[in-house]
Amino acid sequence: MTSNTFGRLFRVTTFGESHGEAMGCVIDGCPAGLELSASDIEKELVRRRPGKVYGSRDEKDTPEILSGVFEGKTLGSPISILVRNTNQKSGDYDELKTIYRPGHADFTWEAKYGFRDHRGGGRSSGRETLCRVAAGAVAKKLLILSNITIRAWSSSIAGIQMPSHGEDGFDFEEIENNLLRVPCKAGAEKVLSKVEELRSEGNSAGGTISCLITGVNAGLGEPVFDKLDARLAAAMLSIGACKGIEFGAGFSAANLKGSENNALPDSSGGILGGISTGQDIFFTAAFKPTPSISKPQKAFDREGNIRDIEIKGRHDVCIVPRVVPVVEAMAALALADFLLLSRSARV
Amino acid sequence: MTSNTFGRLFRVTTFGESHGEAMGCVIDGCPAGLELSASDIEKELVRRRPGKVYGSRDEKDTPEILSGVFEGKTLGSPISILVRNTNQKSGDYDELKTIYRPGHADFTWEAKYGFRDHRGGGRSSGRETLCRVAAGAVAKKLLILSNITIRAWSSSIAGIQMPSHGEDGFDFEEIENNLLRVPCKAGAEKVLSKVEELRSEGNSAGGTISCLITGVNAGLGEPVFDKLDARLAAAMLSIGACKGIEFGAGFSAANLKGSENNALPDSSGGILGGISTGQDIFFTAAFKPTPSISKPQKAFDREGNIRDIEIKGRHDVCIVPRVVPVVEAMAALALADFLLLSRSARV
Amino acid sequence: MTSNTFGRLFRVTTFGESHGEAMGCVIDGCPAGLELSASDIEKELVRRRPGKVYGSRDEKDTPEILSGVFEGKTLGSPISILVRNTNQKSGDYDELKTIYRPGHADFTWEAKYGFRDHRGGGRSSGRETLCRVAAGAVAKKLLILSNITIRAWSSSIAGIQMPSHGEDGFDFEEIENNLLRVPCKAGAEKVLSKVEELRSEGNSAGGTISCLITGVNAGLGEPVFDKLDARLAAAMLSIGACKGIEFGAGFSAANLKGSENNALPDSSGGILGGISTGQDIFFTAAFKPTPSISKPQKAFDREGNIRDIEIKGRHDVCIVPRVVPVVEAMAALALADFLLLSRSARV
Amino acid sequence: MTSNTFGRLFRVTTFGESHGEAMGCVIDGCPAGLELSASDIEKELVRRRPGKVYGSRDEKDTPEILSGVFEGKTLGSPISILVRNTNQKSGDYDELKTIYRPGHADFTWEAKYGFRDHRGGGRSSGRETLCRVAAGAVAKKLLILSNITIRAWSSSIAGIQMPSHGEDGFDFEEIENNLLRVPCKAGAEKVLSKVEELRSEGNSAGGTISCLITGVNAGLGEPVFDKLDARLAAAMLSIGACKGIEFGAGFSAANLKGSENNALPDSSGGILGGISTGQDIFFTAAFKPTPSISKPQKAFDREGNIRDIEIKGRHDVCIVPRVVPVVEAMAALALADFLLLSRSARV
Repeated sequence: MTSNTFGRLFRVTTFGESHGEAMGCVIDGCPAGLELSASDIEKELVRRRPGKVYGSRDEKDTPEILSGVFEGKTLGSPISILVRNTNQKSGDYDELKTIYRPGHADFTWEAKYGFRDHRGGGRSSGRETLCRVAAGAVAKKLLILSNITIRAWSSSIAGIQMPSHGEDGFDFEEIENNLLRVPCKAGAEKVLSKVEELRSEGNSAGGTISCLITGVNAGLGEPVFDKLDARLAAAMLSIGACKGIEFGAGFSAANLKGSENNALPDSSGGILGGISTGQDIFFTAAFKPTPSISKPQKAFDREGNIRDIEIKGRHDVCIVPRVVPVVEAMAALALADFLLLSRSARV
Repeated sequence: MTSNTFGRLFRVTTFGESHGEAMGCVIDGCPAGLELSASDIEKELVRRRPGKVYGSRDEKDTPEILSGVFEGKTLGSPISILVRNTNQKSGDYDELKTIYRPGHADFTWEAKYGFRDHRGGGRSSGRETLCRVAAGAVAKKLLILSNITIRAWSSSIAGIQMPSHGEDGFDFEEIENNLLRVPCKAGAEKVLSKVEELRSEGNSAGGTISCLITGVNAGLGEPVFDKLDARLAAAMLSIGACKGIEFGAGFSAANLKGSENNALPDSSGGILGGISTGQDIFFTAAFKPTPSISKPQKAFDREGNIRDIEIKGRHDVCIVPRVVPVVEAMAALALADFLLLSRSARV
Repeated sequence: MTSNTFGRLFRVTTFGESHGEAMGCVIDGCPAGLELSASDIEKELVRRRPGKVYGSRDEKDTPEILSGVFEGKTLGSPISILVRNTNQKSGDYDELKTIYRPGHADFTWEAKYGFRDHRGGGRSSGRETLCRVAAGAVAKKLLILSNITIRAWSSSIAGIQMPSHGEDGFDFEEIENNLLRVPCKAGAEKVLSKVEELRSEGNSAGGTISCLITGVNAGLGEPVFDKLDARLAAAMLSIGACKGIEFGAGFSAANLKGSENNALPDSSGGILGGISTGQDIFFTAAFKPTPSISKPQKAFDREGNIRDIEIKGRHDVCIVPRVVPVVEAMAALALADFLLLSRSARV
Repeated sequence: MTSNTFGRLFRVTTFGESHGEAMGCVIDGCPAGLELSASDIEKELVRRRPGKVYGSRDEKDTPEILSGVFEGKTLGSPISILVRNTNQKSGDYDELKTIYRPGHADFTWEAKYGFRDHRGGGRSSGRETLCRVAAGAVAKKLLILSNITIRAWSSSIAGIQMPSHGEDGFDFEEIENNLLRVPCKAGAEKVLSKVEELRSEGNSAGGTISCLITGVNAGLGEPVFDKLDARLAAAMLSIGACKGIEFGAGFSAANLKGSENNALPDSSGGILGGISTGQDIFFTAAFKPTPSISKPQKAFDREGNIRDIEIKGRHDVCIVPRVVPVVEAMAALALADFLLLSRSARV
């Protein structure tokens, strides 16, 4: 992890500001001989696009593969993927030039670099995750060759908890069938009604995303600092709105006796000592509600004054479902990298 | 983060197996001119040693600085620190050669590397954290020059929750005055009695550790993948028993409305968009109970048979208080590195 | 240096195949606040384009900055630069699909990755250096703020040696005034006539490039492996046709007595122990003649047969003058990186 | 290459000042299951020790493996190797505290870090190469499993050129039979007499070292920046006294016509486009004469005055033969790393 690069052998560098010319990424280290086309990437990008209910902005993102693929296969050279920004009405953001939106990175970014691209968050915009999803699509294709699958879903939204994986009511098929990506038809209706209520009051909702990874053989992960869970944690916390992560029994394990925790089959989340056990890998990450709400708010400006702010434009009421493919993508990038690293474990 | 190295500019590489010759670390990239002596390191190592109640093993760890320091100051060259292992009764562990202790990394390590040092967990032993504390002591000395302080404490043990920082009953002075490192005198007694109960039944306890970092100016952290919280999360999850982490309002933020979360002063935990806001940084990490318990357990052996196992030796009933300085050390390593990285943010 | 990335803090990742969609680079870690425009980059790219005498192919390369620059200044976020490939007559290369051109990377690339983009060398084409020159233009702008200048020239071509820097006949002004970038008007004519002779016989010429760097303060470079000269050497040898490099007195120093070498003012080339002395930095690199010649040659094919090959298209008779800006660019990238690294040398 | 670390997957970090407590290294990323003992390392260290004629100081260096090896095999965890410094008469160096020896890194080191360990060069001492040889011994053991062998020799000393590999008079067996490590019995006598002459006048000699690597399959190396020759060049230039390197035909290739160079069988030195061709790899590096000579010299002091200096102690008249195992070690480290990297080239 070096600023805008993720991974050691399967390395992804992303670039692009929300309202600049383009978003993109360069994948260096993807093995040669992997079948890959722009449609593989577009398929995942579509999953990140907003739908009708939980979101609002429409972004048609057409990826172009500029290098690294020849006659349908990866060359071993850097794969660069480009998506042009089309929706660049910068004028909408003029007011934000000197004011820092609450809960956003406006102030911190300016504190670090001395100035910032204020249009839609610039580089700190959620739009940046588009590049992760694009790169994750490539990683997923690599992982599937080793029978590794990654599935994430909204496990709670606005405090409404969905059934857990393995519990009654949980249905994998349902996830991509509802706009909120909850794994339960009944739950979907309940959440939808809650989200609509928040929308009508100009508010937003947070939630949690759970992720289940199957097919990982025992032995993946790099002790001691680059543990599988350490890297997955970094991967998730690198997503703007993420505020926490837990593996297996997670925070509840802290309350258990040793004998109880040892006996719990899924307590470890498929990772012990930072290395995969061969069981399913499971974690849950928490995402705060979108700070961009249409309700009027107070905000600081560059001179330190408190000012009234109304964030214009159409914003997602709940970004959680759109983050689901981002979680999958980041998990895929981490695993693809560990998969390549694992080739060097033994003589 | 590359296996046994942490950091990009302030880089720490640790080495050593629990029952091998020695533990140690090499710190490369520490700026020249920092006052440093072995006693600076020993002072922190003492905090990691077991006390009378919550622990049991006694390890006298005397650090030796082998390089990188001249006439009391760092040279800019690698600082290597060595601690000899003295307590190496390997015979105690013969039984574990072919059996995998539940909840430990015995099986996963062997799955990765083909064989393992079975004596006391080898490289996956908690003893490895000694090197982190040693390196963290150096990082702390660097941070104090910028008025950055890091304090951690046991915020809950065995499910008994302590008052939060800022709440009634919370007392910073109390933390290092009780063996459990809880921030509350009354709480200390309650937890102590619970831990003694677990000890008597041959069991163990987990808990959570909270960490407060003060003095960090706005602008620390490296977007987009190497966010301040992303790296701190990786740092904490790289500690063996850690199962989760949350920043600021953490998991509870997922249940709030956007307007509520924006209005909550400490919701962000001092980090927005992966960059420090200039406010205190706050996070809490969850640690599972020590899997080494004296109660008899079932375990798999190399042939896949289930066998009875009784883990011998004297083990910590609750490692949480001993992990407190490790949490501080890892936070210090992350911050020292970001501090150096921040020098390159602007022309 | 990780495959397609150069630098630790000022990191450049390049991508693109000669006859693919585009060439480009991403610069991550450039400090915020640097004035930068596409014309800064184009100005350097023009220097890399072939002229009338020594080259032949005409490539109009128009760079586009896609990200990282806002209102004329760098943001601190990744700067991505794109140049579309326009001259993509792939058909010219059909014959090369199963045959390996002598002296090129056709065979080795295929040996490594299992297959290759055979069109014009694909990723191993000299066209890849375009991205280095683009990134180097940014590095140069950063360096000039510290008064560091980098000038390279053809110090010999086809065995004809030019006067050395400081010697009679050497003229800095002449370098960019002749097509061969030699630092001497009389020498230019001599070399030109030799090159024309080689062209007429369907042959090619190699040469050496010398580089003088002024304005570097004492103290730049990172001991012990990442020495200033070690990195510059890697930078130069990463250019396809480079076969050697020497610093200061170089190979001739090996023949001197200690007392002679110590007394020689420029023997060190401005670097001692891998760190700049504050004097001018000076090195010379050797470049082999272009292996693409129009004379018929023998070559191996995929089945191991020796076949007759005539390389079509119009190729540079001597690439040395075109490599001059590449040498400057790579030196600039190395120095910009060390400049940022040097900010962490002291507390 | 990050300051004191070399390699991406097979990573070596060295530490230690010449007159500090100890020298050592940590090898992280060595695959598990490699047979290794301290005697493997000592065997190589002995080759680096001075003999009777060409050197003078006697250093008995006993390596201790502190971690990473269990029951005679590497564990996959960091291998740390320690050699205590025994010859620490610091008093010899008091005069050098405020004076900068000509041709040494005394001044540059101080310019960078603000102060330095002046005893025997501190970290910039040739003694640092001991750690490289120790680590190289491990790399060699890994390489031999792939039938890769590395042999270096003094190809010229004090301007006296030895026969080249393949030429009449060249004899591999002779290299380790004479104190100067020249590959020719007659040549050894000639050089010995020249070196004795230089010794008697209180002077020193430089030379060149050639290195032949056999058994490398086609396909090793990482385009575009981390080319096999680029990394080998960096590896060699990272050795203190190295002033240049050339591969295959090297500088002489710059004078050839394309048709001549393409036809020359060994012109490429076994590397094309930065990737091994499968032929023997061959390079030659230039080393300046030791700047420590017993003849009186002029030197700058901290106040900028020119002073007379006589360097005390017994110094090598010609360090070239002692650098031969260092060259082999660095080549071994580079190759071991590329060997591991090559495992990720294809799906």
